[in-house]
Amino acid sequence: MENLKLRKTIRKYQQKDIPADLLNDLLESACRASTVGNMQTYSVVVTRDAGRKAKLAPAHFNQPMVQSAPVVLTFCIDLNRFSKWCRQRHAEPGYNNFEWFVTGAIDALLVAQTFCVAAEEHGLGICYLGTTTYNPHLIVEALELPELVFPIATVTVGWPDENPPQVDRLPLEAVVHEEVYRDYTPEMIDRLYAYKESLPENQQYVVENAKDNLAQVFTDVRYTKKDAEAMSELLWDTMKKQGF
Amino acid sequence: MENLKLRKTIRKYQQKDIPADLLNDLLESACRASTVGNMQTYSVVVTRDAGRKAKLAPAHFNQPMVQSAPVVLTFCIDLNRFSKWCRQRHAEPGYNNFEWFVTGAIDALLVAQTFCVAAEEHGLGICYLGTTTYNPHLIVEALELPELVFPIATVTVGWPDENPPQVDRLPLEAVVHEEVYRDYTPEMIDRLYAYKESLPENQQYVVENAKDNLAQVFTDVRYTKKDAEAMSELLWDTMKKQGF
Repeated sequence: MENLKLRKTIRKYQQKDIPADLLNDLLESACRASTVGNMQTYSVVVTRDAGRKAKLAPAHFNQPMVQSAPVVLTFCIDLNRFSKWCRQRHAEPGYNNFEWFVTGAIDALLVAQTFCVAAEEHGLGICYLGTTTYNPHLIVEALELPELVFPIATVTVGWPDENPPQVDRLPLEAVVHEEVYRDYTPEMIDRLYAYKESLPENQQYVVENAKDNLAQVFTDVRYTKKDAEAMSELLWDTMKKQGF
Repeated sequence: MENLKLRKTIRKYQQKDIPADLLNDLLESACRASTVGNMQTYSVVVTRDAGRKAKLAPAHFNQPMVQSAPVVLTFCIDLNRFSKWCRQRHAEPGYNNFEWFVTGAIDALLVAQTFCVAAEEHGLGICYLGTTTYNPHLIVEALELPELVFPIATVTVGWPDENPPQVDRLPLEAVVHEEVYRDYTPEMIDRLYAYKESLPENQQYVVENAKDNLAQVFTDVRYTKKDAEAMSELLWDTMKKQGF
């Protein structure tokens, strides 16, 4: 498990396929993750076809990994399959609501992450695409997702063709609280973010974007309030359109 | 990684503590999980104190694991820390919305599941408590979670004191779709759920609950529409109260 500590996100892949047997083996392991009531309220769509990847790419702002990775996996909340089973047994399902949207997301994400850990253990490299929740409507369309199915995480997978340096993390004390949440004083914030702010690559971003500090690069350039509000609305609308 | 395929949820634990060094080591590994924009929009609250566990227990419908496990971990969406850092740097954060609630949930769940895989690899047993999203308001109170912090998954951890049989899963073809989502025909539903329906323990649940079939045990007893609708409202209200 020492590998977990050394892991890195991989965005460049060799032009080499992932055998179907290996992929299925990894997915079998992933499906052993915990799931609420053993209901498995998730589905995984496997994209290998170049044409389908080209359809998916705009949903992910054309990040090159979508088309260069041999396999793209879209992990979805899925209350469709379970509800169909219920109806077919004259049982009335009540899973088209916010509670089950969240529950399905939990189920799907535990499977996604177990897949990633297993894949990395086999020497594969992975990258999560945060864009999945930005353009869910485009993914619904590209993958023909029916009602009660919703994309929550996309992972590109392949054999690594790069060896980037490991990125920083906050010190553990920044994210772990003993017994109760201990809110952050200004002094704690300064101390916990000092290392991140000191990194040359982060200082470079500040200069390139003509900002005063790294936090402003996040709020004014990378993840703005305006974008987040538009995406919140789109996410909510797509959730409703998918029947939740 | 063969262990991933053999894993089981563990609900009974030995009366034996988890050393702080081991727990921190597992949490360090967990924090290497992917995180959107390297923003780490999560926190973990570690509960070891018996009094605090007693406060948490009702939120989890008094499931015995909460008080019998040496450690209870509550994984939270956390946009508070990041927003505080932004404000302190005169950057205006825009993370109090639905998009970032979902993004924070993704971040927190990838960390939670990486923790679980690492813990099991070290011989520990874990159990996810699905009750976390049923009574989030009680957890907010018990763990003193401030605005922009929201509990999304609870895991009990300890040294196993039971060796239960492994539970069933649907066949892999039930949850994996090639290229596009291939919706389920009635014949597929029958075939994919046949094994689950045939299991003696599941047939026993049908008899005990005086239902016609297993699906009705889910819809009429375990996870009813009425409960889900009430919980959806509570989840939504708590999300709003926490400032999202």
